[in-house]
Amino acid sequence: MTILDRAKTLLERLDRLAACTETPGQIDRPYLSASHKSAVALVESWMRQAGLDTRIDALGTLVGKRRGTGDDRRPLLLGSHIDSVRNAGRYDGPLGVAVAIDCVANLRDAPFDIEVLAFGDEEGGRFPGTLRGSRAVAGTFDTALLDSVDAGGISVRTALRDLGANPDTWRDEIRNGARAYLEIHIEQGPVLERADAPLGIVTSIAAATRLQVSLRGEAGHAGTVPMDGRRDALVGAAEAIHVVRDTAQEHAGAVATVGTLTVEPGAPNVIPGLVRFTIDLRAPTVEQRDALEADLSQRLRDVAIANNLALTLVRIHASDGCVCAPSLQDRLDRAVRSLGIEAPRLPSGAGHDAMAIAALTDVAMLFVRCKGGISHNPAESVTAEDVALAIGATDAFLRDFAAS
Amino acid sequence: MTILDRAKTLLERLDRLAACTETPGQIDRPYLSASHKSAVALVESWMRQAGLDTRIDALGTLVGKRRGTGDDRRPLLLGSHIDSVRNAGRYDGPLGVAVAIDCVANLRDAPFDIEVLAFGDEEGGRFPGTLRGSRAVAGTFDTALLDSVDAGGISVRTALRDLGANPDTWRDEIRNGARAYLEIHIEQGPVLERADAPLGIVTSIAAATRLQVSLRGEAGHAGTVPMDGRRDALVGAAEAIHVVRDTAQEHAGAVATVGTLTVEPGAPNVIPGLVRFTIDLRAPTVEQRDALEADLSQRLRDVAIANNLALTLVRIHASDGCVCAPSLQDRLDRAVRSLGIEAPRLPSGAGHDAMAIAALTDVAMLFVRCKGGISHNPAESVTAEDVALAIGATDAFLRDFAAS
Repeated sequence: MTILDRAKTLLERLDRLAACTETPGQIDRPYLSASHKSAVALVESWMRQAGLDTRIDALGTLVGKRRGTGDDRRPLLLGSHIDSVRNAGRYDGPLGVAVAIDCVANLRDAPFDIEVLAFGDEEGGRFPGTLRGSRAVAGTFDTALLDSVDAGGISVRTALRDLGANPDTWRDEIRNGARAYLEIHIEQGPVLERADAPLGIVTSIAAATRLQVSLRGEAGHAGTVPMDGRRDALVGAAEAIHVVRDTAQEHAGAVATVGTLTVEPGAPNVIPGLVRFTIDLRAPTVEQRDALEADLSQRLRDVAIANNLALTLVRIHASDGCVCAPSLQDRLDRAVRSLGIEAPRLPSGAGHDAMAIAALTDVAMLFVRCKGGISHNPAESVTAEDVALAIGATDAFLRDFAAS
Repeated sequence: MTILDRAKTLLERLDRLAACTETPGQIDRPYLSASHKSAVALVESWMRQAGLDTRIDALGTLVGKRRGTGDDRRPLLLGSHIDSVRNAGRYDGPLGVAVAIDCVANLRDAPFDIEVLAFGDEEGGRFPGTLRGSRAVAGTFDTALLDSVDAGGISVRTALRDLGANPDTWRDEIRNGARAYLEIHIEQGPVLERADAPLGIVTSIAAATRLQVSLRGEAGHAGTVPMDGRRDALVGAAEAIHVVRDTAQEHAGAVATVGTLTVEPGAPNVIPGLVRFTIDLRAPTVEQRDALEADLSQRLRDVAIANNLALTLVRIHASDGCVCAPSLQDRLDRAVRSLGIEAPRLPSGAGHDAMAIAALTDVAMLFVRCKGGISHNPAESVTAEDVALAIGATDAFLRDFAAS
């Protein structure tokens, strides 16, 4: 069977998985929902066909294990997630799980154990917080997060028990000694498409910060206050939006986005007195993120002073991201070159389970080109040819790892 | 009785008028409401004390008339409005009515008729459209506006009949041949306070346009789309906001304001794909407003092109304003100088009943300084000393007019 045939079969599997949803007609599969439970059953059937021993772990991660031929029980981990955002695409998460299963099935033998992990809490959305499954495996899970409740008042603990999991045993899931972790994932951005490259090797997962900003001036009558007597909060915010853009452009590899903005009082004939907005900023490493954040914060203070506005700036979220192990990047590079192609190296602006696993062991990520860079959207799309190359590269990576 | 004593008595009247409201604890007096009816009754009692004959006209305007000593029945008109916005101050409108009544009472005699008009539909808010009362007097009223209904389905026609008015006779209210119209009003802006001047002479009521603008780019993941590959609608809108400000500053006497703005999709981690905002723009004359609007529209098209965004721009409202008669401005100037002070000339950025009456006869407006330029707010405030000067100037204006 060629890698292209395997890719086509795999994409048919993902089409069937798309039917596991809370909302008919679109993909909506939150952590520990009925649709997550049916997705677990379907993916478990693929794992069994691949000869893996399966179980649901303490945090609802579906685990498929192949025992190695040697005596060393330290496992190689592969995985991604099978939960989804609301109105999702078919590939964000499940593609990586499906490729891992297919490639482990295709590997003749390995001296060490291999586990495929289908995490369930990557996207968040139902319960506060995310990455419970991968954090349990990494040993960084916070037990208090079992008591988070959803909008209906159901706790994570209760929902896990309904799935047949025993959350109180989560410490048994820590994979101390794991050799490495590989995650295959769609890029969710346009970089590979623009580079005309089917695959990419991730250098790091960006460190991210989210800031809540307000600029307060003075509301007034839009007809009676002369231009030179105004303290218009929106005019100041407009300068801040450009400062956010300019500052990100001056920091290599960084991005920064004002994604929400509200105006008060918010009437056509009233000068804005208060503007609130968020800034999402990301950079390849924690140090670069911190430098970007410090630079940007200072410039925003300057904008407030120059516009005679009062600034508040609160950090409401931060994630340190992770660096992908250079040795694993090189191993992926060799695997890709064995197919006769090259894969650019690029940072990941989005978060992934690999970010949590990096606290446990070396991690690597292989990105697959997606059409238009579109993700978190039903229009998410990959080609069978690109998936075939991802399968071929993962095959080569596993063979290389098994032989070393 | 000194003008300061008269001012203090007048301010006590306005304190009592503040009790005519739909909402206890704040001033809320919409057109043809029960509180408007009780305000009419109170103001009518002041008119009668001043020796005026009173009636409710076809559009609910309270009219107080003093017959002249001569044979010429062409009246001099004075007036302002007694309806209010929600959570209003005490002076926007009623101050002008109260000063007019007080000064007509103080005038010995005049050869011509004088009418004090207490309009009821200056602020709008209850029914679509405004200025019904002053437009009837000017002969520019649109009969179809009698069929406008409020949120409860009550028509203007029904509400007028409840007040005892007969709307079908509105054409009888047209004051063809009226000599002039004078309106005293708080400034509702900060210009007089900054000029340290108690009174101001209005040169024109600004011509105004309201535009609804949208800029459409491309939404995307805030983490995965590099800065140089974005079509961020909010980054473009920020440039547009500065263009609005800069363009207004380059047109003498103009103001322009972006008062509302919304972002779609509107999530912290999503690049804005669509931004909608309003522009309120005003200039002293129609010609200046049109020049400002044409200049601004062209520059907004340039912003859209430069940012690779799609622009839509719709004019959703326009008002031509009016010019105050230069001869009446000069007459007001002489009246003010007779008190030993000077009054700066300034345009009115806000609309007033004078705007409608300008279609009938020459109009003049005298502005009274208000604290901090604050209006449409319970904090609206004037001093007895400034009101006394307004009374003195209006006395002098009327004496001058009666003698000419």
